Amino acid sequence: MPNISNKGVNMPESPIRKLVPFAEQAKKNGAKVIHLNIGQPDIKTPQIALDAVKNNTLSVIAYSRTEGSDIFREKIAAYYSKNDITVNSSDIIVTTGGSEALSFAMGSIADYDDEIIIPEPFYANYNGFATATGVKVVPVVSTLENNFALPPIDDFEKLITPKTKAILICNPGNPTGYLYSKEEIKRLSEIVKKHDLFLIADEVYREFTYDNKEHYSILQEEGLEDNAIVIDSVSKRYSMCGARIGYLVSKNKEFIKTAIKFAQARLSPPTYAQIASEAALDTPQSYFDDVKEEYVERRNTLTTELKKIDGVKVAMPNGAFYCIAELPIKSADDFAQWLLEDFRYKGETVMVAPAAGFYATKGLGLNQIRIAYVLDQESLKRAVTILKEALKSYIG
Amino acid sequence: MPNISNKGVNMPESPIRKLVPFAEQAKKNGAKVIHLNIGQPDIKTPQIALDAVKNNTLSVIAYSRTEGSDIFREKIAAYYSKNDITVNSSDIIVTTGGSEALSFAMGSIADYDDEIIIPEPFYANYNGFATATGVKVVPVVSTLENNFALPPIDDFEKLITPKTKAILICNPGNPTGYLYSKEEIKRLSEIVKKHDLFLIADEVYREFTYDNKEHYSILQEEGLEDNAIVIDSVSKRYSMCGARIGYLVSKNKEFIKTAIKFAQARLSPPTYAQIASEAALDTPQSYFDDVKEEYVERRNTLTTELKKIDGVKVAMPNGAFYCIAELPIKSADDFAQWLLEDFRYKGETVMVAPAAGFYATKGLGLNQIRIAYVLDQESLKRAVTILKEALKSYIG
Repeated sequence: MPNISNKGVNMPESPIRKLVPFAEQAKKNGAKVIHLNIGQPDIKTPQIALDAVKNNTLSVIAYSRTEGSDIFREKIAAYYSKNDITVNSSDIIVTTGGSEALSFAMGSIADYDDEIIIPEPFYANYNGFATATGVKVVPVVSTLENNFALPPIDDFEKLITPKTKAILICNPGNPTGYLYSKEEIKRLSEIVKKHDLFLIADEVYREFTYDNKEHYSILQEEGLEDNAIVIDSVSKRYSMCGARIGYLVSKNKEFIKTAIKFAQARLSPPTYAQIASEAALDTPQSYFDDVKEEYVERRNTLTTELKKIDGVKVAMPNGAFYCIAELPIKSADDFAQWLLEDFRYKGETVMVAPAAGFYATKGLGLNQIRIAYVLDQESLKRAVTILKEALKSYIG
Repeated sequence: MPNISNKGVNMPESPIRKLVPFAEQAKKNGAKVIHLNIGQPDIKTPQIALDAVKNNTLSVIAYSRTEGSDIFREKIAAYYSKNDITVNSSDIIVTTGGSEALSFAMGSIADYDDEIIIPEPFYANYNGFATATGVKVVPVVSTLENNFALPPIDDFEKLITPKTKAILICNPGNPTGYLYSKEEIKRLSEIVKKHDLFLIADEVYREFTYDNKEHYSILQEEGLEDNAIVIDSVSKRYSMCGARIGYLVSKNKEFIKTAIKFAQARLSPPTYAQIASEAALDTPQSYFDDVKEEYVERRNTLTTELKKIDGVKVAMPNGAFYCIAELPIKSADDFAQWLLEDFRYKGETVMVAPAAGFYATKGLGLNQIRIAYVLDQESLKRAVTILKEALKSYIG
């Protein structure tokens, strides 16, 4: 029998995946499961995007242009321009989700065994793309106590080797909800320029910033043109995660030329999803205002209620729709499984994402969970009550 | 300035890409360009698939299941069953095109610098996926004189090293149009079992076989369950190349479990495209009968007309919708560019794919072109006339 690759053996499983059978069993047993575990917003996709697909008049679903059509990319450039980011359509490649954008970026800048430094905790799938492309993730620790702010630049500097090709950040952060300040971006900018590294910023949550804090994109930073690579996506912005459209944006011509070769191999991004995404770009600002207002209220409800529980610590998120909570337990893995297997409160339980899967350093985040606040406030309140009762029972 | 990776530098460009600017310029100058260069069928997508998307009632375009929904995969399994291939839904992963299926397959079975043997000429993008995943393509030569039949098993055996992980075939073949016989598949089956290799078969053209020849899938071969990996796609079958839906099929549980981890990292295949593809599975047999009849007539027209030209040799394709022609010239690269830049016949010219890009061995296929017969017969006839006149002028 032929062997699976070491790469395949080492490919990490999603931190949530192993809980799925327990959630399914709980539902089969009649429990209602409130899902705090996945960043799938309940927000409606803009009608304009839904209608564009329903009204399409294609009769042959043909290949589209590898890097996305000129018109679509010009509209994307106009979106950035409205957000004080100056890019041309030729600086943009349309990809199959932010996922593919990140794979193309890693492949274009890093060879086998090269290193990318990432503040942890980080989006777990970065590990997957790194493993698939043969890149080594080097974590630099950020802490809940510090709200997951940028670690000191010295901590990065210590980790830089001849194999280091890039620093990768998610801003605002999944799973932390932390929004990097302009000052922090400038610090990162200096270090990548000093060491001739790329700075990759996953900015898919850029529209979701709260408390009047503004998102500062690495594309706004002058002098960083050759180093800056932005990963973007329509998934969260327009609540169309299933479309699978993202963008790769950079003013480094050599990088774009290279990434297009990766894109050519897979021919084109999905046609219907591009129709939806192009239309979504006409979504009025009022949509985002409403969505942001809703998320702020959800965040406030969630964090206020969580803090009332004895022994629970919460990092206050200023962006995205996640927060990390530390629980007075030893193993969030065990607790999350127990919630699904053994605990019910008025017939309900909750599913959470154990945070250890978002750390690369073994032993970190064991008592933390990630909560996605993509549910209505009533459900969130009930979920926190369940967590509170569960902790009592679990610890007691 | 940070450096691009060696991988990025070595990433091959599409063999057609460099001709695109010349084609665009020709059109700007008023020429009509007949495209023989790309496998984008002109055939209409089945109405049932188009309608399913137009009538969808989604209000949130949410993530779908990583490996495709149970219902969709059960329908795919039923399709195979109708074609004498027995697989379960759990043997199938829905992917973003056959492209992604191949990337997942390579990642799951091969580590950095491992080798995959492929009969050449082969689909050029195999090079791209191999480069992206760090795998080395080892070509074994098939020849036009022999109609691009399977090379002798000894030729494979000579190339097998401890780093060899798989043999990859495309059946029927792009760019050759060659359909492997049951006998040839059995020979391959023996060698992969003997050396504990995977046998990956790209069977995306399986419906397109002519002259009453039947497609024999590697999934039909008894005893090959642990070795066989099939790459499939709706792209050509239902003329929906832009949907970007493919499948990875294998009865090797360990392989499927591993490939799902690669799939998890990118979350899910595109939602709208899955709606279209699931509906497409209900396409009546009469659609394929009509399409096949059309392709046979096109093939006959094309090959008959090509053979009338002095010095032109053509391999007779029994499947897919490509054929390789050898021209009485030195460089098909130069000829293809010259056709676009300098030659017009009654205001028209043709765009062809130089075949060298489909070979991994340098120096092979230099005087060959690949022609995709995805145009109506009138256009094909005109295209051959243009080629004939062009060759006279180019050689003369």
